[in-house]
Amino acid sequence: MATAALAIAPDLITTLHGRPRGHLAVVGIGPGQSAWRTPEASRLIAEADELVGYGLYLDLLGPLAAGKPRADFPLGGEADRCRHALERAGQGARVALVCSGDAGIYAMAALVWELIDTGTVSDAARRAEVVVAPGVSALQAAAARVGAPLGHDFCAISLSDLLTPREDILRRIRAAAEGDFVVAFYNPGSKTRRTLLAEARQTLLQHRPPETPVLLATSLGRPEERLTHRTLATLAVDEVDMLTVVLVGSTQTRRLETGDGPRIYTPRGYARKEPVP
Amino acid sequence: MATAALAIAPDLITTLHGRPRGHLAVVGIGPGQSAWRTPEASRLIAEADELVGYGLYLDLLGPLAAGKPRADFPLGGEADRCRHALERAGQGARVALVCSGDAGIYAMAALVWELIDTGTVSDAARRAEVVVAPGVSALQAAAARVGAPLGHDFCAISLSDLLTPREDILRRIRAAAEGDFVVAFYNPGSKTRRTLLAEARQTLLQHRPPETPVLLATSLGRPEERLTHRTLATLAVDEVDMLTVVLVGSTQTRRLETGDGPRIYTPRGYARKEPVP
Repeated sequence: MATAALAIAPDLITTLHGRPRGHLAVVGIGPGQSAWRTPEASRLIAEADELVGYGLYLDLLGPLAAGKPRADFPLGGEADRCRHALERAGQGARVALVCSGDAGIYAMAALVWELIDTGTVSDAARRAEVVVAPGVSALQAAAARVGAPLGHDFCAISLSDLLTPREDILRRIRAAAEGDFVVAFYNPGSKTRRTLLAEARQTLLQHRPPETPVLLATSLGRPEERLTHRTLATLAVDEVDMLTVVLVGSTQTRRLETGDGPRIYTPRGYARKEPVP
Repeated sequence: MATAALAIAPDLITTLHGRPRGHLAVVGIGPGQSAWRTPEASRLIAEADELVGYGLYLDLLGPLAAGKPRADFPLGGEADRCRHALERAGQGARVALVCSGDAGIYAMAALVWELIDTGTVSDAARRAEVVVAPGVSALQAAAARVGAPLGHDFCAISLSDLLTPREDILRRIRAAAEGDFVVAFYNPGSKTRRTLLAEARQTLLQHRPPETPVLLATSLGRPEERLTHRTLATLAVDEVDMLTVVLVGSTQTRRLETGDGPRIYTPRGYARKEPVP
């Protein structure tokens, strides 16, 4: 009984203030195609009164977004986007903040919680109910397209130095190389900033062979999807842009040729309990 | 024209052998609940003539699996499970090999490709068309439930030493600690094997404070779902079993109390382009 009373307390409090408690769903819609969007994500968007997000992601929703007021925000300005969504929820609206991939992986969920935590939104916004919906992230879609390169331990590293000092990024890259992780690089480069991927390649080459499989994946799930197989030796940093995910195999990752194209995979173990005979 | 002819060649070849080309879909159904299962995964299962998988995962499919022949395999014996699925596809069947979470993350996809690559299945099985469907993995569902702990660079490490030598696992743990990654531990322990999680805790404590947030997540998406908040100091290895996912924050991960319970998140950057005022 006590538990149930506690669970509804926040609603009661806002109701006493005269408004229903607002609701913010931070929703990951997966990469590109609706076939990778979970039913939970679709439901939360369908139930929302209004949508907030980067215009391209909202466009991907098609009929699901039809008729709903939408606040398009450009890339960059993420704090404004999240603050707007939180304040609308604080005013009692039911809001979906739409992210590509997984809402919690290099997307908006962490920034929403940071704004709530650091007190830079109104008290009403802080009282809104916030839920996060996970989704397929780009590294998973890229991996599935070409086999199973994430079949053993892996890490994800963003190469964007807008929010993280270069020294921290370089330390992560060294750790990934020394730990022999399969690595997924997000935000691997832009026209003006290519050096971090070049440095990552050099660091990884000190710990894995030049023929280590590398995949460049762009526009996953969209008609313009592009998958490019390279190796650490042949990876050219000019081939990537900010929308590319770069997967680099570990020392164990293997490539095979099939009638359907090249496939790469990372075996689950080095030693094995049941040897593949 | 040449490309189109090449693209259909594998089908033509098997048709010349008198059988349509078999099809194996290695499908990740997400953790626990159908609301996290992608439409692609549901479609591939619906289109399959027969299902292969661990019994519990097949049971989770409910009506989607109704009426389809199913080959239940126990936990362990994964190579047998994958080989059976491949051989059935080699015989012309349309097969779905059902995995929990993401098919490519600590699941069956890598083993399927390894069996194809190492020649331990029949030529017919090797000619089957194999597709992999990604899905929400346990680390993502756990993260979404409690905020956004994966908001910055993270890694996934399996603590199972059945397939990987302990020295390799310990090296990965050291690298994750030195690189200050948020860490998701899969297979963190069983009744007979708890020492690796204890060693991981000790290693991480050398690089991050005792109050670093830790989450234990079990049975995600199922009625018996359990989320337990700890810190590195209060993490007790007796609390985990093989079905628990353990998330450990980085030095940047923060915890806040809300009316809906504790939340943890990892800010997207150390420095920031647009300071949260």
